[in-house]
Amino acid sequence: MNFSSDNAYGAAPEILAAVAAANDGTARSYGEDAITKKLTGRFSEIFEREVSVFPVVTGTAANSLALATLCPPHGAIFCHEESHIATDECGAPEFFSHGAKLVTLSGADAKFTPAAIEAAMPNFQRGVHSPKPSAVSITEASERGTLYKPDEIAAIAACARKHGMKLHMDGARFANALAHLKCAPAQITWKAGVDALSFGASKNGALAAEAVVFFNEDDVRDFEYRRKKAGHLISKMRFVSAQLEAYLEDGLWLALAAKANALAARLAEGLARVPGAEIANPVEANAVFARLPDAAVARLRAAGALFYDWEPSENGKTLVRLVVSFATPQAGVTRLLETLRAGRPA
Amino acid sequence: MNFSSDNAYGAAPEILAAVAAANDGTARSYGEDAITKKLTGRFSEIFEREVSVFPVVTGTAANSLALATLCPPHGAIFCHEESHIATDECGAPEFFSHGAKLVTLSGADAKFTPAAIEAAMPNFQRGVHSPKPSAVSITEASERGTLYKPDEIAAIAACARKHGMKLHMDGARFANALAHLKCAPAQITWKAGVDALSFGASKNGALAAEAVVFFNEDDVRDFEYRRKKAGHLISKMRFVSAQLEAYLEDGLWLALAAKANALAARLAEGLARVPGAEIANPVEANAVFARLPDAAVARLRAAGALFYDWEPSENGKTLVRLVVSFATPQAGVTRLLETLRAGRPA
Amino acid sequence: MNFSSDNAYGAAPEILAAVAAANDGTARSYGEDAITKKLTGRFSEIFEREVSVFPVVTGTAANSLALATLCPPHGAIFCHEESHIATDECGAPEFFSHGAKLVTLSGADAKFTPAAIEAAMPNFQRGVHSPKPSAVSITEASERGTLYKPDEIAAIAACARKHGMKLHMDGARFANALAHLKCAPAQITWKAGVDALSFGASKNGALAAEAVVFFNEDDVRDFEYRRKKAGHLISKMRFVSAQLEAYLEDGLWLALAAKANALAARLAEGLARVPGAEIANPVEANAVFARLPDAAVARLRAAGALFYDWEPSENGKTLVRLVVSFATPQAGVTRLLETLRAGRPA
Amino acid sequence: MNFSSDNAYGAAPEILAAVAAANDGTARSYGEDAITKKLTGRFSEIFEREVSVFPVVTGTAANSLALATLCPPHGAIFCHEESHIATDECGAPEFFSHGAKLVTLSGADAKFTPAAIEAAMPNFQRGVHSPKPSAVSITEASERGTLYKPDEIAAIAACARKHGMKLHMDGARFANALAHLKCAPAQITWKAGVDALSFGASKNGALAAEAVVFFNEDDVRDFEYRRKKAGHLISKMRFVSAQLEAYLEDGLWLALAAKANALAARLAEGLARVPGAEIANPVEANAVFARLPDAAVARLRAAGALFYDWEPSENGKTLVRLVVSFATPQAGVTRLLETLRAGRPA
Repeated sequence: MNFSSDNAYGAAPEILAAVAAANDGTARSYGEDAITKKLTGRFSEIFEREVSVFPVVTGTAANSLALATLCPPHGAIFCHEESHIATDECGAPEFFSHGAKLVTLSGADAKFTPAAIEAAMPNFQRGVHSPKPSAVSITEASERGTLYKPDEIAAIAACARKHGMKLHMDGARFANALAHLKCAPAQITWKAGVDALSFGASKNGALAAEAVVFFNEDDVRDFEYRRKKAGHLISKMRFVSAQLEAYLEDGLWLALAAKANALAARLAEGLARVPGAEIANPVEANAVFARLPDAAVARLRAAGALFYDWEPSENGKTLVRLVVSFATPQAGVTRLLETLRAGRPA
Repeated sequence: MNFSSDNAYGAAPEILAAVAAANDGTARSYGEDAITKKLTGRFSEIFEREVSVFPVVTGTAANSLALATLCPPHGAIFCHEESHIATDECGAPEFFSHGAKLVTLSGADAKFTPAAIEAAMPNFQRGVHSPKPSAVSITEASERGTLYKPDEIAAIAACARKHGMKLHMDGARFANALAHLKCAPAQITWKAGVDALSFGASKNGALAAEAVVFFNEDDVRDFEYRRKKAGHLISKMRFVSAQLEAYLEDGLWLALAAKANALAARLAEGLARVPGAEIANPVEANAVFARLPDAAVARLRAAGALFYDWEPSENGKTLVRLVVSFATPQAGVTRLLETLRAGRPA
Repeated sequence: MNFSSDNAYGAAPEILAAVAAANDGTARSYGEDAITKKLTGRFSEIFEREVSVFPVVTGTAANSLALATLCPPHGAIFCHEESHIATDECGAPEFFSHGAKLVTLSGADAKFTPAAIEAAMPNFQRGVHSPKPSAVSITEASERGTLYKPDEIAAIAACARKHGMKLHMDGARFANALAHLKCAPAQITWKAGVDALSFGASKNGALAAEAVVFFNEDDVRDFEYRRKKAGHLISKMRFVSAQLEAYLEDGLWLALAAKANALAARLAEGLARVPGAEIANPVEANAVFARLPDAAVARLRAAGALFYDWEPSENGKTLVRLVVSFATPQAGVTRLLETLRAGRPA
Repeated sequence: MNFSSDNAYGAAPEILAAVAAANDGTARSYGEDAITKKLTGRFSEIFEREVSVFPVVTGTAANSLALATLCPPHGAIFCHEESHIATDECGAPEFFSHGAKLVTLSGADAKFTPAAIEAAMPNFQRGVHSPKPSAVSITEASERGTLYKPDEIAAIAACARKHGMKLHMDGARFANALAHLKCAPAQITWKAGVDALSFGASKNGALAAEAVVFFNEDDVRDFEYRRKKAGHLISKMRFVSAQLEAYLEDGLWLALAAKANALAARLAEGLARVPGAEIANPVEANAVFARLPDAAVARLRAAGALFYDWEPSENGKTLVRLVVSFATPQAGVTRLLETLRAGRPA
């Protein structure tokens, strides 16, 4: 019963097999190999547009490299106060960008609106006394497992453009978003105004593989220098690229994500029936945020369930986060829900 | 006939198998897993001392994170002018250290002596007008495939300490050095005065795995913050650590290195017999630097051999670099040497 | 009627004279001159303790250099959301510290309490996933012209120490604070737990002179390297130090500050009598924040008064900031108040 | 007899007077004042072209801000191995540029040629493995008191452009260069291909005033953000700008420089007559580099002369540097030369 994170699970067998298959013979190093070179075509096909693709091994690297490319050292990046870049990356975006400022915005369900950007903007329109508005970053699916709809993204993109800013999307769980929205990848990215995407695979079946995708060649600028200088140009890159290739093959990525999403939906449904429980945020990806009675939380932990308290207990209830992955066993969800039911008065 | 680099070859089967084996079940993420936790004991055993070990996925990250930990933003790092950190990492040490200065020293066979440090030192003893001498970095085996002997390392360490500096060793090919010197790992590291080691595995059989090893706990300082902030804390770290575990299991690392070294020795021996050829540097690891007649170079290329010209042709000869790995086929060396012999006048 | 800022006014005649007097003969450059060397003794006397003193020419440099010395690149600095370092320095603390994160806290009158730090702390106690709590920065007098009392400072210092953090004070208007509190400089600095002080003089009579003061020698670390590397080691430093020397001579600094404070008090008193006006924050230094009827604001502007709107008009009133300096003419205050009175219905 | 540096001397009376005159009344802060705004016209007139001008207070800030604007964090800057930016600024260019690499070139008289750039270039044409060639920096007058002639500058500029690099000139002693060359400022700057100039005044009569001059508006980019973020936007900027205004008024700058140059010429002439002495570099500005018999050096020191040994004694002679300024008394030179003559055998 491990619901602590999707990265507690391993890799999909297809991806492991692809890594093994990539081991034959010799290959040019530092991303000049054939597997890596094919990625551009593959991603361009998936996004219905010529894109630039750069594999890396962590989401933090993907986000930070993308943002540092879009934002100068004296720039400001607008993001949600619960976003991964603001709360979980130890200041990596500041490091890679050489000191840019993250301006954190509030908003329900870990999402924000153009109005939140506009409200924060006056502080950054006083000439050189405050950082230069340079980029907006949204997370899809968000840290609360919720989704921006295409028109919500387009509205944020319009606001960003109006203020001369670029739009970045942290897509650590991009496949989960697509699997729910059932729309084309282009729909929630460049067609909605996204300039750069951190395309995640590690949380959904890869060992360690992400890709930074730029939708406009001009935005790429010196990305490759930045990646190299940050120690993120892997010498035997073929092993990273092979993961991405397998991930995208025959819709594996979407199938894995759909599986996780379905499990999350089932989990949410079950939790909603627990007396005193409330689902805290719409369940649109592979995470469930729920307020559970403290007794229920205690029972789950006693039964060995692993998950995070998201906020301290208040009024006898605790906000918990339960994350499922493509590899989470159905039986685990079943057992968790039964554990909760078993605790009910007869 | 691929002699371009050791990273043109893939991974050792034992290491691939270990990655697959690590895929079972769930594990704590970000290095809190059981495999990663066992590495400390393993490395401590190998180095005959309690050490601190941190896995990363590239040599550039290992070097830069180690140096940034040892050297402040206003520090100077003394290294060889041909060293990887000075010539091949696109300024990564400067990036990670936030602007430290690399002071490049000359010396035969890509090695330098305490005398070279002393000669450069006066420029850095003028108070705040020049960076603060903070670290010395040596490469073992060096970029020319040569080795510092234990007493040479000890002499450099003494010089470093005298000036208040720490000693870092870039051990991207550390196994090849050990396999040649046939000494204990401790002998050329902490016993000789090395403070931090970039322990390489990627060039000698891993997919992407290196480790930063600190020999004194005090030197570790905030290394873990730096690694995280640089995007180098892999979420499914177990897959990196499993590579290192397999690499060290039953002496695999030394066996692989010995195989490569032997092949290099055979290659050098053969090249030495080519009329007009000269071996440019002692062959003490898995690389051969040779000055070959331009006709011989042309013949090799025509036969499909891959390798780098190291210096432009001069007086009818070109300095070339030929690197072999644990996976380079014996037959490749044989064929290369035969290609050269075939060109001789009868 | 210039109430826009205290730095709209020039320098005190005594300080200009000191600069001219420092021009005789030759002197060692880069701070090795006799005037600079005497500063340590002067400041130590004033602070009743051996202190380390480093002159610079801007408050931004003073704050950023002090904070970068106290806080690593992966550190977090807790400060008020209205503080100068958070809102007016274009990310300078992030630049000098190489990417530290400013954690902004709320609190009335531009002041915060230990409780605000404690409330923010849990987000920074999750290991390497978030920046390391490293420093707290308070402003005395604050951006709202209010003061921390000695025991309030001591409480914040205790909280900082408890979490392993250093305490920095932005004293751009330190003299104004002292003139109001009528306490010894030591009382609101090291005796209350302050580790480093940005000691301002530019806003209170100097041309361009500030000093970074460290109360514990250990905290100085490589401050001098940082100052040099940031281009803030002035070659003819004697001209900066001469300003500080004159500033401290015969209590000039406190006399100038007292004059400004008295003028602010008179201004506040007058404004309080304006029908519909309210003083927004306690007037404890040289700035008055008042909510004035929009008609009154318009009348002042029509009469040529210069000052800033601090918040947009709401319910017919606007929050304005009026700053006075040692050189603001009494007549300007008189005229401003008369302008307001003239507008009243008979 | 102070020949240690031109910054050992104070300020010209005209400049001190201008600072005092700027003290009247109020002015907008942070460079929005009338004196600062007039500088653009003044410099544009002097350079016979519309230029962008930004006052700062140190040469290190001027150089570093200019270079950071022209060169990305992953860039390489080609400069002389004796240049101030390479040897005397504690890594400031690396700090401001966030880690760019200074590639140091050799060349007689502290000057280098396009051939030196070309020789170093191959190491920086290997894709992302080495920093991106971004800027060339020359010093006029050089650290050896020598000058690049207009055609020498043009040749370097052509080489820089060919490789996609910008050309920066460190003009800490720009006036001394002009006074010797007797050419128009445009002649050795934009007409010869210089993109940005660090225009020095501090060494030639100002208290603390330099200016960064860009000759093409496009190159300015976010310079003003960088200056602010580095703490180099002085609040009472009028006091810096007033120095520059007075410096340029009625040719004061060139008159002061000519005076220093003439004194240097006289000094060199006298030294050349000392038995065993040799002038080491052409004397084209206000510095004399001479190899003097050690006995002569000892006699000078005994007589109280201040100057730097530039290299350790070799074969009984020491290379010394003697710098004169606009304010160095004629009598000092006379006395120094007499001291030397007094030591000769009768």
